[in-house]
Amino acid sequence: MNNTDSKLKIIPLGGLEQIGMNITAFEYGDSILVVDCGLAFPDDDMLGIDLVIPDVSYLKDNISKVKGFVITHGHEDHIGALPYILRDINVPIYATKLTIGLIEHKLEEHDLLRTTRRKIVRFGQSISLGCFRVEFIKTNHSIQDAAALAIYSPAGIVVHTGDFKVDYTPVFGDAIDLQRFAEIGRRGVLALMCDSTNAERPGFTMSERTVGRTFDTIFSEHRNERLIIATFASNVDRVQQIINCAHRFGRKVVVEGRSMVNIIATASELGYLNIPENTLIDINQMRSYPDEQMVLVTTGSQGESMAALSRMAADIHKKVTIRPGDLIVFSSHPIPGNEKAVSNVINELCEKGADVIFQDVHVSGHACQEEIKLIYSLVKPKYAIPVHGEYRHLKAQAAIAGELGIPQENVFIMKSGDVLELDSESAAVSGRVETGGVMVDGLGVGDVGNIVLRDRQHLSEDGIIVVVMTLERHGNTLLSGPDIVSRGFVYVRESEDLMDEARLVAEEALTDCLNRHVTDWSKMKTTIRDALGSFVWKRTQRRPMILPIIMEA
Amino acid sequence: MNNTDSKLKIIPLGGLEQIGMNITAFEYGDSILVVDCGLAFPDDDMLGIDLVIPDVSYLKDNISKVKGFVITHGHEDHIGALPYILRDINVPIYATKLTIGLIEHKLEEHDLLRTTRRKIVRFGQSISLGCFRVEFIKTNHSIQDAAALAIYSPAGIVVHTGDFKVDYTPVFGDAIDLQRFAEIGRRGVLALMCDSTNAERPGFTMSERTVGRTFDTIFSEHRNERLIIATFASNVDRVQQIINCAHRFGRKVVVEGRSMVNIIATASELGYLNIPENTLIDINQMRSYPDEQMVLVTTGSQGESMAALSRMAADIHKKVTIRPGDLIVFSSHPIPGNEKAVSNVINELCEKGADVIFQDVHVSGHACQEEIKLIYSLVKPKYAIPVHGEYRHLKAQAAIAGELGIPQENVFIMKSGDVLELDSESAAVSGRVETGGVMVDGLGVGDVGNIVLRDRQHLSEDGIIVVVMTLERHGNTLLSGPDIVSRGFVYVRESEDLMDEARLVAEEALTDCLNRHVTDWSKMKTTIRDALGSFVWKRTQRRPMILPIIMEA
Repeated sequence: MNNTDSKLKIIPLGGLEQIGMNITAFEYGDSILVVDCGLAFPDDDMLGIDLVIPDVSYLKDNISKVKGFVITHGHEDHIGALPYILRDINVPIYATKLTIGLIEHKLEEHDLLRTTRRKIVRFGQSISLGCFRVEFIKTNHSIQDAAALAIYSPAGIVVHTGDFKVDYTPVFGDAIDLQRFAEIGRRGVLALMCDSTNAERPGFTMSERTVGRTFDTIFSEHRNERLIIATFASNVDRVQQIINCAHRFGRKVVVEGRSMVNIIATASELGYLNIPENTLIDINQMRSYPDEQMVLVTTGSQGESMAALSRMAADIHKKVTIRPGDLIVFSSHPIPGNEKAVSNVINELCEKGADVIFQDVHVSGHACQEEIKLIYSLVKPKYAIPVHGEYRHLKAQAAIAGELGIPQENVFIMKSGDVLELDSESAAVSGRVETGGVMVDGLGVGDVGNIVLRDRQHLSEDGIIVVVMTLERHGNTLLSGPDIVSRGFVYVRESEDLMDEARLVAEEALTDCLNRHVTDWSKMKTTIRDALGSFVWKRTQRRPMILPIIMEA
Repeated sequence: MNNTDSKLKIIPLGGLEQIGMNITAFEYGDSILVVDCGLAFPDDDMLGIDLVIPDVSYLKDNISKVKGFVITHGHEDHIGALPYILRDINVPIYATKLTIGLIEHKLEEHDLLRTTRRKIVRFGQSISLGCFRVEFIKTNHSIQDAAALAIYSPAGIVVHTGDFKVDYTPVFGDAIDLQRFAEIGRRGVLALMCDSTNAERPGFTMSERTVGRTFDTIFSEHRNERLIIATFASNVDRVQQIINCAHRFGRKVVVEGRSMVNIIATASELGYLNIPENTLIDINQMRSYPDEQMVLVTTGSQGESMAALSRMAADIHKKVTIRPGDLIVFSSHPIPGNEKAVSNVINELCEKGADVIFQDVHVSGHACQEEIKLIYSLVKPKYAIPVHGEYRHLKAQAAIAGELGIPQENVFIMKSGDVLELDSESAAVSGRVETGGVMVDGLGVGDVGNIVLRDRQHLSEDGIIVVVMTLERHGNTLLSGPDIVSRGFVYVRESEDLMDEARLVAEEALTDCLNRHVTDWSKMKTTIRDALGSFVWKRTQRRPMILPIIMEA
């Protein structure tokens, strides 16, 4: 199995330092395979940015080697960048059935379906990609059809868990294939790349089925109210359990929210969702049923401003009005950063007289510490490479690997862009490749960078003052202005004196330049900017952007 | 005690709908007393705003009635607006010693110390304010010297808890004076206004002293590392416990972060902090001691970008460099909305090789459900008015009041601005007064309103395109331009074609106006804005602010 001439290279191009934008290249000889191709949602300081995709320069530079994308599951942080990256890296996609279904929906939206090759892989099946063989192993997660990967390379086997938890009693399909992890472990595994999301949490993540029992209690204790349940659009098992409860308690189900409607359509078309006849109704049929015979399943569990539940809470939803007595259930935890938005929605719902349940109606889709220990103990890797997490999570998993006896020098907390070269003899980070986030804003991919963001930040804090003036061409005579216009600085109608004075300050600075026969426009602009800036700071302690514009006529 | 001719008015001018900006007016006949005068921190959508203070038009309009401010404790959401409000409402301030000390520090900064009357009140003592008598009752909270108030009015007694918890074993001073609550309750209480912050949480808030025991464990398990502990600047008891531990374990203490240094100075000057000799050292002396003999107590437990700990984590602190082996303790919980910022700081610290403890080293300063029940059971009010919370928290307390037998019609979930009129016969919201948040931005108080904020929002998302042109005076001839300048829209150097085309679109729109002999500048501007807006949308799917400026020469 070993090849002393060549080593396997593992190159995460994203997904470390953050939860999101997962993409990792595996390279051996003339073959590269890419695991996952996800997007990240913008940080708070990326003003106006829609989403972030990975910089795949390394793949472009080695395009002839790239054999395909192997996708572990259908969440956005694993598939969301495909429509952008495929434009440059048009190689086949391999994934399980539901994952391919969700990818196809995305490709259709971007008009890429015709030009993209894709192949459905079953659990237990292997595919060959250059000198690699990749086996798909059944796992459990908060979306169905999630796979771990056993990547067989000439340098040894790498097991990549994907996002996973251990669910002995899943709602749909089989439990994680622990036996297969054990078998592969027995053969000897070079490296384990394991999900770190919950590596700081002790214990075991509860089975998805426990949420079903909570729903049972909620349904049986609220027989006279309308139920509205918000959850993640992609958690089909969660929706299945709501449908099961609804059926048992004689309620109709309405699904609301674009992304949820789409995913449910795909999932039930592909057989991942079992809807009893006459259970699902259209939102327009809702009026035909009394409240106590209705369940709404909706998006918006993260307080996203335009999601269905948020629109209901704000009273701007076209078809649903929250009424006193409604019971709203958040079957979710706020993702870090969304806490305040979720709380605002809860307040709005309460103010409308609804009751809100937001605790203990959710389980995570990621393995906690005891599950991570289980996988390590089955796979028994030589090297541990924690993946899928912020630094703190990777570090927490590294500590677990240490507890289980993996020597510290065999644990690699990598950064995106690091090139880890390894074989059964040794492993070391041998270099770096270019990586980073490429910001997508509207149709623009990568045309907004740090300068633009810095300007947006500046504008957002104190607004802008534009100073315009017209000078005689080739001369130095003022023909018009300086005029002053501001936006986002002060309410001009109530600050006329201030703006008048500001104009005088600009005029004085300009006159001074002209008197001193300054002809360099950039010098004139700097003089005006400085004079106006310090005047405004003294008067308001604000620092608006000051933009002098000189025209010539 | 009753007066059938007149009722007591309770008018919250802030503090409901949010945790922050607490201020409530109590009015009877010709007397108004004001409880607390706090600020709120800006919401995420209040771009560039520093802080928010209450609109006190109602007090200004009734200035002759206003007898004084009674302050329950020294947190910013209870005292922070005083320096602004005192400019218009210059009446005496009554509070306990530490609270007055913290207020005086604030007044000094705003040069208001000389002109503001203030009086220290002891627990058990009463003050007379017009027809009111106000008694200060000892409570416990996350700052010392917190008081509940018994407000004796001709219409009956109102008990206002302030922010409180029940701590049977406080670190400093006495436990909450439960006997006094009981005595007053025995006499018959008209209304209870009780802290709702933790009304959703079952059980009892643990004693501050339990955190001391956790510190003991941490100190004894980390004898060889430098300790850096972040907590709230105003939690003097927390700092006291760290100092006690440091003294016992033979460590020196450095206090870092401006607000913490200030509060510690005030607290120890007034005798609320007991520092053993040779324990506190200056940050500049730190180099003289080995790591294992040091504890740093610092601000920044909320991930605030400019706080001391955040600067250490980002490696921009002038005097402290985080090193591998340092142990950093977050003795705090993230306040909702700060979770991501805190997590970012934890990641930065971990990346520098520090270990971080962030769980179970904090207790809340607010009463949980069982404590709220205890206070209700001692006070036995006729009316319940939950205060200090978002709607969800007020509602949770209303439910508790209901469980304890207070009829629903006697529980009032008020909105800021509601006027509740009550006496022993009846209570009802009888009207509303003007309230709201006044935004403070730099030196400006109230000069930034919704129009300015909307502009800042717009600018922050897609930036601005300025179009300038010079026309002949009284004529219709183009002398110069149109020129185009953008900020925060695209990186211009890489988008020259787009900007050139945009200029042409503007020029075409302008020429069209001139050809059609349009002379109305606002019409010309609208035409240019529309043409350019739709061009830019089509090409980029962005909507920058478009600002046409016409000059004449």
